Amino acid sequence: MSENSKHSKPLVGVIMGSHSDWSVMENCAKQLKDLGVPFEAKVISAHRTPELLQRWVTASTENGMEVIIAAAGGAAHLAGVTAAITSVPVLGVPMKAWSTEGMDSLLSMVQMPGGVPVGTLAVGKPGAKNAALLATAILGNKYPEYKKAYEGFRAQQTADGEAKQDLPSV
Amino acid sequence: MSENSKHSKPLVGVIMGSHSDWSVMENCAKQLKDLGVPFEAKVISAHRTPELLQRWVTASTENGMEVIIAAAGGAAHLAGVTAAITSVPVLGVPMKAWSTEGMDSLLSMVQMPGGVPVGTLAVGKPGAKNAALLATAILGNKYPEYKKAYEGFRAQQTADGEAKQDLPSV
Amino acid sequence: MSENSKHSKPLVGVIMGSHSDWSVMENCAKQLKDLGVPFEAKVISAHRTPELLQRWVTASTENGMEVIIAAAGGAAHLAGVTAAITSVPVLGVPMKAWSTEGMDSLLSMVQMPGGVPVGTLAVGKPGAKNAALLATAILGNKYPEYKKAYEGFRAQQTADGEAKQDLPSV
Amino acid sequence: MSENSKHSKPLVGVIMGSHSDWSVMENCAKQLKDLGVPFEAKVISAHRTPELLQRWVTASTENGMEVIIAAAGGAAHLAGVTAAITSVPVLGVPMKAWSTEGMDSLLSMVQMPGGVPVGTLAVGKPGAKNAALLATAILGNKYPEYKKAYEGFRAQQTADGEAKQDLPSV
Amino acid sequence: MSENSKHSKPLVGVIMGSHSDWSVMENCAKQLKDLGVPFEAKVISAHRTPELLQRWVTASTENGMEVIIAAAGGAAHLAGVTAAITSVPVLGVPMKAWSTEGMDSLLSMVQMPGGVPVGTLAVGKPGAKNAALLATAILGNKYPEYKKAYEGFRAQQTADGEAKQDLPSV
Amino acid sequence: MSENSKHSKPLVGVIMGSHSDWSVMENCAKQLKDLGVPFEAKVISAHRTPELLQRWVTASTENGMEVIIAAAGGAAHLAGVTAAITSVPVLGVPMKAWSTEGMDSLLSMVQMPGGVPVGTLAVGKPGAKNAALLATAILGNKYPEYKKAYEGFRAQQTADGEAKQDLPSV
Amino acid sequence: MSENSKHSKPLVGVIMGSHSDWSVMENCAKQLKDLGVPFEAKVISAHRTPELLQRWVTASTENGMEVIIAAAGGAAHLAGVTAAITSVPVLGVPMKAWSTEGMDSLLSMVQMPGGVPVGTLAVGKPGAKNAALLATAILGNKYPEYKKAYEGFRAQQTADGEAKQDLPSV
Amino acid sequence: MSENSKHSKPLVGVIMGSHSDWSVMENCAKQLKDLGVPFEAKVISAHRTPELLQRWVTASTENGMEVIIAAAGGAAHLAGVTAAITSVPVLGVPMKAWSTEGMDSLLSMVQMPGGVPVGTLAVGKPGAKNAALLATAILGNKYPEYKKAYEGFRAQQTADGEAKQDLPSV
Repeated sequence: MSENSKHSKPLVGVIMGSHSDWSVMENCAKQLKDLGVPFEAKVISAHRTPELLQRWVTASTENGMEVIIAAAGGAAHLAGVTAAITSVPVLGVPMKAWSTEGMDSLLSMVQMPGGVPVGTLAVGKPGAKNAALLATAILGNKYPEYKKAYEGFRAQQTADGEAKQDLPSV
Repeated sequence: MSENSKHSKPLVGVIMGSHSDWSVMENCAKQLKDLGVPFEAKVISAHRTPELLQRWVTASTENGMEVIIAAAGGAAHLAGVTAAITSVPVLGVPMKAWSTEGMDSLLSMVQMPGGVPVGTLAVGKPGAKNAALLATAILGNKYPEYKKAYEGFRAQQTADGEAKQDLPSV
Repeated sequence: MSENSKHSKPLVGVIMGSHSDWSVMENCAKQLKDLGVPFEAKVISAHRTPELLQRWVTASTENGMEVIIAAAGGAAHLAGVTAAITSVPVLGVPMKAWSTEGMDSLLSMVQMPGGVPVGTLAVGKPGAKNAALLATAILGNKYPEYKKAYEGFRAQQTADGEAKQDLPSV
Repeated sequence: MSENSKHSKPLVGVIMGSHSDWSVMENCAKQLKDLGVPFEAKVISAHRTPELLQRWVTASTENGMEVIIAAAGGAAHLAGVTAAITSVPVLGVPMKAWSTEGMDSLLSMVQMPGGVPVGTLAVGKPGAKNAALLATAILGNKYPEYKKAYEGFRAQQTADGEAKQDLPSV
Repeated sequence: MSENSKHSKPLVGVIMGSHSDWSVMENCAKQLKDLGVPFEAKVISAHRTPELLQRWVTASTENGMEVIIAAAGGAAHLAGVTAAITSVPVLGVPMKAWSTEGMDSLLSMVQMPGGVPVGTLAVGKPGAKNAALLATAILGNKYPEYKKAYEGFRAQQTADGEAKQDLPSV
Repeated sequence: MSENSKHSKPLVGVIMGSHSDWSVMENCAKQLKDLGVPFEAKVISAHRTPELLQRWVTASTENGMEVIIAAAGGAAHLAGVTAAITSVPVLGVPMKAWSTEGMDSLLSMVQMPGGVPVGTLAVGKPGAKNAALLATAILGNKYPEYKKAYEGFRAQQTADGEAKQDLPSV
Repeated sequence: MSENSKHSKPLVGVIMGSHSDWSVMENCAKQLKDLGVPFEAKVISAHRTPELLQRWVTASTENGMEVIIAAAGGAAHLAGVTAAITSVPVLGVPMKAWSTEGMDSLLSMVQMPGGVPVGTLAVGKPGAKNAALLATAILGNKYPEYKKAYEGFRAQQTADGEAKQDLPSV
Repeated sequence: MSENSKHSKPLVGVIMGSHSDWSVMENCAKQLKDLGVPFEAKVISAHRTPELLQRWVTASTENGMEVIIAAAGGAAHLAGVTAAITSVPVLGVPMKAWSTEGMDSLLSMVQMPGGVPVGTLAVGKPGAKNAALLATAILGNKYPEYKKAYEGFRAQQTADGEAKQDLPSV
């Protein structure tokens, strides 16, 4: 278990369908850690370990988890299946799988039928980072410290952008 | 429950995510009926009624069901979620959903990660019909009457094609 | 202004790029109303009225708005531009625009670069409905009444699905 | 000829359009071998050796073959042409060919017109492995030893997933 | 049989996978008739009537047919299978099938592996007309009357275009 | 010939590959007329009347034409071929042709190789209108009256958007 | 100039938009050479050297060229522009250009409007080889030596396929 | 700031969403420099530094900038947001971002709704070069020296193409 040391209970869960997704989703975990958000990251497959998924979602949300980020590739069902068994907000990050440039993963996540929502982020690393940011923004509505942390990140990002606008001569 | 009257127990289950899929999947049910294959058709959503899906798959396969055909659209998780909870062959039929011409449904079904297979048919009516035929071919390996029924269908189809090759003059 | 009568201040903002999006986004507004969530719906274009967008986002969030749902089609920049000027969670609903089956709208929303997140829902009506549900789930973390309303909706939806699983005979 | 040593007659045929497909389809063959399913693997092209295909399918199925797995890329006709000349279940594995990320191979296989079914798996390695698993599930309906082997594989896969859910700290 | 009355033997064969393709391929037949090219049009399915296809291609080319135009939709194998059994030029016309806007039909035809060529035209009516024109251009290399007919068509088309370049005022 | 009455010489040329494009490109012509920009609209095909295209481009630009807008569908070569024979700015408007939702037209226009540029607008009506606006913006750099006209249009559009932001209650 | 030594005049022309296409189109040239078909290969761009294209096509066809193969990428206009200025059969080979996996090149070639045909082959090397084969098949209708050469190639290819059907053990 | 030394004020602005775009957009800057067009290149993100974008566009155009070239990837909003705040012509160059082969970037730029135009060039390097050429062509209408420079470039390019049409023997 990867857990942020400052808090006793994770507010955000980060799950992914395969260990191979970690090189991308590590960016999500690091961003959450940088923002001081307590989280837990695990490999849980909707297809290979459906009962584990059921148990983990139920136990985690009963224990205070408020946002779940689910990353998967190909026929990426993890986010949708998670959303079907909980009422906390579920965010999805499509992984660029073995083919079709991530379009299969993206469409498998985002095109949820009416009634069970998944908020989907971009394919791959930008989506992994943004899922952490969006989760923090969601927590920020309730917890002032996360709102402050997120706004600090955004302000720093803007300041960095203002500072580094120049390019070399050609 | 739609059940074929000649048999006491359904060998094939036909499930779909929404009542709106019936106008397409009716073609699957009719083809199974024409071939004399006992089946049961139901609307079960992986997202809205996940527990019903679990109960139905478990009970049906314990009761002798040997093939499950699952039809769904958009982020079409029904076939994959079904395959995750049973060891009988699962066939998927992508429904042409509200956008992207059925590509979302197709990719959500067919791009299953290694370990949990779904045999996917074409989008829409041709897939609905072919799912019935492939299920019958699968049963045909074990039950001579279904092999005979399927081979009879195929022979008739070929004979019809040979008989109707001409076109009007221009 | 379309406003829910039970509350004095809208917690959710629903904006769309064009009046022609209303026939779809009406489903979002109705779902929010059914769940008792106070909201405000407006037509604001990122391209035609960028200053109005800036003013409205600033004023609304200062006034207590906690989630913004932005719907747009084609080169659908509304959600991203909104996310660039606020730290409240922004959800996007891609509209099926004049061509390419909504893929242009979807990709324009979901593929946000790292640093400024948009949680994207499905193209069209299912996405409109789910944006309302996800916004309510987000609010539910903080406001028990919205968590209860959302869980009630989900439980009813499941009960309806369990009750209506049968299909006509063929 | 690559043949499983425990059985005298192959129950599954694995054919592919080109020797270059072997690096992917080897995963199919290995999975069948691991499950103890007798199989035969060959390179047969629907376009370059159509008569060989006709002869091989006829002879193999007369000799007791019950499932045929066909892998091909580009305008991937091998599975469809095989399905047109036999009544045993045919499964297709799209190869990622020289362009368009395997979408050409996938659509060429899965979009069969009504009347001649092909059950299609995912593009590339996951599809190769899953074709072996689905073939084994099909055989499992008739042969208890293959049902047992497949259920053993699935149970082991689930146990492995339960055991390896943790990730490194960030 | 649809046959041009001025010639005793068809030089061009026009085959299609389904009677439903005729409303499009009629444009091919009419164009051939207008150019005075003797042709024969038939419905022959690579999947439902593979032996008929074999017999017809063999008999027709032995009888002097020099170009075959094959139209099909979905997993459109007809042109490729025809090309596999003859050495006369084969032209393909993708039909806009039940989904994916004809992309499945197009890719199934055009992406032939090296060794067995199919010259593919546009999806639908423009392709149907152009297949007739290209077949005539091919014949024109050998038969001066068809070269003359084709050049006459092209010159007339250009003259018509020059004559009708104006548009109404706005 | 459709010509704006206030000017003796057209500054913008609007050409399209087919009379069937007029229902869309009429929006371009009307927008130019509303802005007071003198233009000429014609049907000229790069494929059917290549010499007419050569003559018209040469004569028009010698006569003072400063921007050419070219609309075409399918394998939409008109804009690229025009750009190859002139040094005035060429803008392309992809028409939604007989298939693939306009993606064929869009890619045929926009993916010009380095060395010969075409500035491409959106598929269909929005692109037709925006081509007129972009042409006017280009002229506006040189002619103050067109800059003023374009800025007036934009200001009015913004004012209209500000005035019509409300939606009906639900 | 690359010319086959046995003939004084090229029967087939192979043109491509860029020197970078040669690594692919070399396969076309080599196949023509192997079949003994006299050809000429040149780099001619429809966009950068439109007048050279006009001159070369006119001179070559007057000098007896009977088939032109045109290869290009991106907004691949070369085949269509060539077809617009000649009545000999034109075959197109889409090059995999800088993006979109060759789909831009393919659609730019194959989706020609009715009236001016291009017979399109597969993207890249398979298409390069098949263009040579189809050109030879076209010549074969008129010249018995090329029909014989093409049939010899096909027979050898089939014999090779029959001889090399086995795979290593797993 | 990268600035052309011959002029005091930049006529063209080249902005891009990220420093990682420079390796592609450098080709745009170099082409402008080669043609002697004064320009300024900067990294400005529509999402991370929206206020900087507003300030820079306003100041630059007040200072005489006549064309803005905006490059971005993924949900590429930079060109559209720029076009929303200025009346000078805006050209867009889609960057090949982290997935989907640049289609997300292309569609996010080109599919602008009616009212606010962006002239879009090809994805990546060819688009970067062509944006410079199209900007120069636009300036050429007003400034004879840039028309001359552009026509010189085009003439040289054609001369180079005429000179280098031959290929090695095979």
